[in-house]
Amino acid sequence: MKPIDLRKKARNGDNFTTSGLAKGHVQTNVVIIPKSYAFDFTLFCLRNPKPCPIVEVMDPGNYVSSFAEDSDIRKDVPEYKIFKDGKFSEFATDISEFWRPDFVAFLLGCSFTFENELVKNGIELPYFESKKNVPMFITSIDTEKAGNFHGKLVVTQRWIRREKVVKAIQATSRFPNQHGTPIQVGNSEEIGISDPYNPDFGDPWIPENEKDFIPLYWACGVTPQLVLESAKIDISITHSPGKMFVTDLTDEEMAVI
Amino acid sequence: MKPIDLRKKARNGDNFTTSGLAKGHVQTNVVIIPKSYAFDFTLFCLRNPKPCPIVEVMDPGNYVSSFAEDSDIRKDVPEYKIFKDGKFSEFATDISEFWRPDFVAFLLGCSFTFENELVKNGIELPYFESKKNVPMFITSIDTEKAGNFHGKLVVTQRWIRREKVVKAIQATSRFPNQHGTPIQVGNSEEIGISDPYNPDFGDPWIPENEKDFIPLYWACGVTPQLVLESAKIDISITHSPGKMFVTDLTDEEMAVI
Repeated sequence: MKPIDLRKKARNGDNFTTSGLAKGHVQTNVVIIPKSYAFDFTLFCLRNPKPCPIVEVMDPGNYVSSFAEDSDIRKDVPEYKIFKDGKFSEFATDISEFWRPDFVAFLLGCSFTFENELVKNGIELPYFESKKNVPMFITSIDTEKAGNFHGKLVVTQRWIRREKVVKAIQATSRFPNQHGTPIQVGNSEEIGISDPYNPDFGDPWIPENEKDFIPLYWACGVTPQLVLESAKIDISITHSPGKMFVTDLTDEEMAVI
Repeated sequence: MKPIDLRKKARNGDNFTTSGLAKGHVQTNVVIIPKSYAFDFTLFCLRNPKPCPIVEVMDPGNYVSSFAEDSDIRKDVPEYKIFKDGKFSEFATDISEFWRPDFVAFLLGCSFTFENELVKNGIELPYFESKKNVPMFITSIDTEKAGNFHGKLVVTQRWIRREKVVKAIQATSRFPNQHGTPIQVGNSEEIGISDPYNPDFGDPWIPENEKDFIPLYWACGVTPQLVLESAKIDISITHSPGKMFVTDLTDEEMAVI
């Protein structure tokens, strides 16, 4: 299916995970907040480009992305999460009834692009085939504050065969706007992870033969969701995990080299 | 001289061009505007990353850069230009008397980083030795609008030996935050430049033997200055051309790969 067809499917109310769909096209995390918070949140993203790589910041009130033909950010995400005063309030498949002319939509890079790249480079990601979720951990690393936005860095974990570590770093280097290179190679405790088999979100990943694998950690798009909660904005809206906004951009258009 | 010593020299009132100084350290264009315009200008930069690559957006009222120890953006640029209602008003070597708590300072990448890289790769830039200025042209290309910020793209021109064109593209690819790759290779008319020997700013560059050279055009940090004029902001302040803010960042820290 083409990106525009996936967006139409979501617009028709279908609720589905977008992982592995429209392969080769950029999918994004979505954050929608009132304009009064938008400058501070933009600064937060600029200061924390690894967890919050900006693909697009839309004009206040605009719901058509420049990177997705005939799109409508109020309807084209399969499932949204609505937060009120920083607390999760409800799920929705269409946010038209909540939309305000002062809403600013942020599209932030997601890891699907670089995961495709890892697979293309012969790196196994068993959670794909087993329909499990990548393990995610809240680290001890503080993000750079901007206004009321602050919090700990969240990371995804992938166990990489020792002989593939260099390749994994090279492959993800090409995509700084999709979380880029790992923030930690091998040393879980260094970033405050005492038990690497017990993630805060997602499913545990226990490598088949631990001495052949090293855990690599990448900055994760869940970081801004936790940060949003701490900022206690009157209303904010995000996509639901794994149910992303699918753009017309190709992965290669986002590659730096 | 180290970056901090150059900043102190400027702080003491010395008025000098920073080209070629503290080599290997990142120098930046500076734009200072009231907070009420800062979100729109940030969006303008994000939508036009080649002419306006963001290195830092400082908090409103903050004059200490995160990337320059003990710095003061009100004093550490050798010369400033003050604009009132979009029109140039005066030069200053210290803007403390104009400073307001709602001022937001933007540090934008400049071409000095990639020029060093070109020279290291054996590409001749004769305007360096002759103390002339790089030729700059206003193109026919529209920038992406944000709020009241819009205008034409300004480019710098460098004549590159045919056998060095690939190297010039490779070398500048590594620095997307310092204008990155050229936006045009060879075809001046394609971007609205009818006479490539008659620049709008800077000095003409006539290659010694035209058939051995091709003109390459890179997005230029003068673009935001023209855009600022068109936005007619009550007060805005920039650095003077060639008299940049010198950060502690190294060129290699900005390289993407």
